[in-house]
Amino acid sequence: MKVILSINAGSSSVKISVYTAKRGQPPPQQALAEAQINGLTAPPAQLKYVRGGQTILKDQAVDDKVSTQDDAFKLLLKTFLDDSELPQISSKDDIEIACHRVVHGGDYTTARLINLGTYIHLEELTDLAPLHNVKALQIVKSCISELPDAANVAYFDSQFHATIPEHIHTYPINPEVARNNQLRKYGFHGISYQFITNAVAQFLDKNTRDLNIIALHLGSGASACAIKAGASWDNSMGLTPLAGLPGATRSGSVDPSLVFHYASDVGKLSPSSTKELHISRAEEILNQESGWKAMTGTTNFGVIASSEQPRCKLAFDMMVDRICSYVGSYYVSLGGVVDALVFAGGIGEKSDKLRRCVVEQVACLGFEIDDERNAKPVVDTVQEIGKEGAKHRTLVCLTDEQWEMARGCAENPDLWRS
Amino acid sequence: MKVILSINAGSSSVKISVYTAKRGQPPPQQALAEAQINGLTAPPAQLKYVRGGQTILKDQAVDDKVSTQDDAFKLLLKTFLDDSELPQISSKDDIEIACHRVVHGGDYTTARLINLGTYIHLEELTDLAPLHNVKALQIVKSCISELPDAANVAYFDSQFHATIPEHIHTYPINPEVARNNQLRKYGFHGISYQFITNAVAQFLDKNTRDLNIIALHLGSGASACAIKAGASWDNSMGLTPLAGLPGATRSGSVDPSLVFHYASDVGKLSPSSTKELHISRAEEILNQESGWKAMTGTTNFGVIASSEQPRCKLAFDMMVDRICSYVGSYYVSLGGVVDALVFAGGIGEKSDKLRRCVVEQVACLGFEIDDERNAKPVVDTVQEIGKEGAKHRTLVCLTDEQWEMARGCAENPDLWRS
Repeated sequence: MKVILSINAGSSSVKISVYTAKRGQPPPQQALAEAQINGLTAPPAQLKYVRGGQTILKDQAVDDKVSTQDDAFKLLLKTFLDDSELPQISSKDDIEIACHRVVHGGDYTTARLINLGTYIHLEELTDLAPLHNVKALQIVKSCISELPDAANVAYFDSQFHATIPEHIHTYPINPEVARNNQLRKYGFHGISYQFITNAVAQFLDKNTRDLNIIALHLGSGASACAIKAGASWDNSMGLTPLAGLPGATRSGSVDPSLVFHYASDVGKLSPSSTKELHISRAEEILNQESGWKAMTGTTNFGVIASSEQPRCKLAFDMMVDRICSYVGSYYVSLGGVVDALVFAGGIGEKSDKLRRCVVEQVACLGFEIDDERNAKPVVDTVQEIGKEGAKHRTLVCLTDEQWEMARGCAENPDLWRS
Repeated sequence: MKVILSINAGSSSVKISVYTAKRGQPPPQQALAEAQINGLTAPPAQLKYVRGGQTILKDQAVDDKVSTQDDAFKLLLKTFLDDSELPQISSKDDIEIACHRVVHGGDYTTARLINLGTYIHLEELTDLAPLHNVKALQIVKSCISELPDAANVAYFDSQFHATIPEHIHTYPINPEVARNNQLRKYGFHGISYQFITNAVAQFLDKNTRDLNIIALHLGSGASACAIKAGASWDNSMGLTPLAGLPGATRSGSVDPSLVFHYASDVGKLSPSSTKELHISRAEEILNQESGWKAMTGTTNFGVIASSEQPRCKLAFDMMVDRICSYVGSYYVSLGGVVDALVFAGGIGEKSDKLRRCVVEQVACLGFEIDDERNAKPVVDTVQEIGKEGAKHRTLVCLTDEQWEMARGCAENPDLWRS
């Protein structure tokens, strides 16, 4: 029995889920405990703590000094250690594996134990996706100093997409420049897509290697994925998570020359760049100042979906159009052999309106929504929302990246040698 | 009866086709004469001259001094004037309409007579697409000075796409920046798509307003278009012709942050910028140093399609994948109500292999290729290549932008007042 922490560092948040697992077996679906700090960039940050499915603390303001990923990690760790009702973690020694979600894994095609070599390579990789990897690396550093005896594992959002074939992952640019700078489509949200693949295969009682699905992870970051024979065949994200669908603050794919029309100096380093984080003003605009927040003023897609304001309607219709584009495109890419269209992610789980609008637009491919099923709250890991007898099934999946990382660690023989 | 010149300025070429037309009637399909100068950026340029379908001059080297659009225009005009067997143009006065293909029309939704106001607006529009509009404007200037009594008309590649609905043409960026800088999807190749729409409607014996097609204009610039009820509904190109499908030297849509990984200063003005032509190094890389030329070394897609070299196979497979993405996407966008999939443009007309590979990949939508029909040379304006009895038809169209511009002018009542 090992205690595994699944650690997820966002741009202004850190979330840690606690699991126990036996050698080679998946951990129980429900985490023992889950603690999260939000609002690091707008102090005071807030702490949320759930144990055994029960909310113990909710949005509790924490000390103003908690403003970095390092501060957050220490406080979360203390929360677990101080909780007498979480006997599985009574001292730091109880924690054997710390698994870190890292967005960009570059050429890594599997999760990696973080030794010195891996760490240095991870530092190099931040050049590929500074906006996404810097925070995770900060947590890795905190974790190594706080839990020197734990095994640290990097779990990559890109690793599931290592199977995307060459003619799909290649950009039509100078091949030498591409090789030297590792410029290709990587794809992201892979931890979620791995979870979805396994869960849907189980739901449909199929081997994952026989499963073809079109999966949509729709949250404040949104993507679509074609999964063929249980492996990633295409993903809407690209070299970075910027490409593809719009997000809460991301433009998604736009004319690559668009950003040069904002101003003449968008190629320069952003004033908010730091020693670790080198990004151009252009990347900042497209990643952090665009998307449906820029169009409507809110990041909350639920508000947008239910609003009658023209700017919200426009953002909603645009999102449906872009999602359906990928469904059509991946349907063709999979040759029409599709077991199911699967909605996931915060918006995919919650917005029955979005799901209905998407499925209605792709009805010509053989998907049909069942309004009654679609209106039900989503409580099962996988739930049917398509009509009985439709040519293709339509599902919702409660994806769980934290659990998926713990599962991957529990099933990794390299971590059970001792 | 009026003599109409259809003028098309490329980056290193100028082509002029001569038509005569009666009031409100389309001109004959075959131009009276057609003269073209190629290789302006690599002197000596070459002159090609065809009259009545017969080649009179072929790749004839011209004076080294012919190096600008202005030089080229004068020489082409002289070629017509000096040809005693072209009595329709015996003096400059015979030319009543000069119609100019202009790539980017910005907010213009129809062809425009170039008066002073239009001219100034056209100059402003070059900021939106400097790489594409500058050469055309140079010809407009030459033409005004050489043929002061002719009516000059600007015919825009974007005008056909003015009907693209808001939720499709809007980018998910700051709406105020978008409005102030006219940043939206415009779409291009519209002169060709207008021709295709009319020709296919006639072939299928339908009213254009009842016609839904997915059209592919595939040449060294390549795009896809969803045409709904005879009007543009979506186009793969964007703010500029860079977005969408790869081209001979264009990347097409790539992760919008990709170009910042080439070098740190790609946002700066390119050293080849001139007083009229302000472009960043990034725009130059993505427009002129990418595409299948960068991948394979040749711009000739025919060579790529028939080569067994891995880099050519990769470029070919990539192109098929990207084209099929748009077919799937537009199929859904049109709700599956599609009269035909239509191939056009140099590659669309010539590469039966590309057509076969695309149609086989989209077979799940109901398109089927007829190998015998597909292997035949394309001689009719519209020719069937799909299988008898397939759910949807597949066609090839010999698109003719020069003729389409002349038709538009002949049918424009504003040009026939006198």
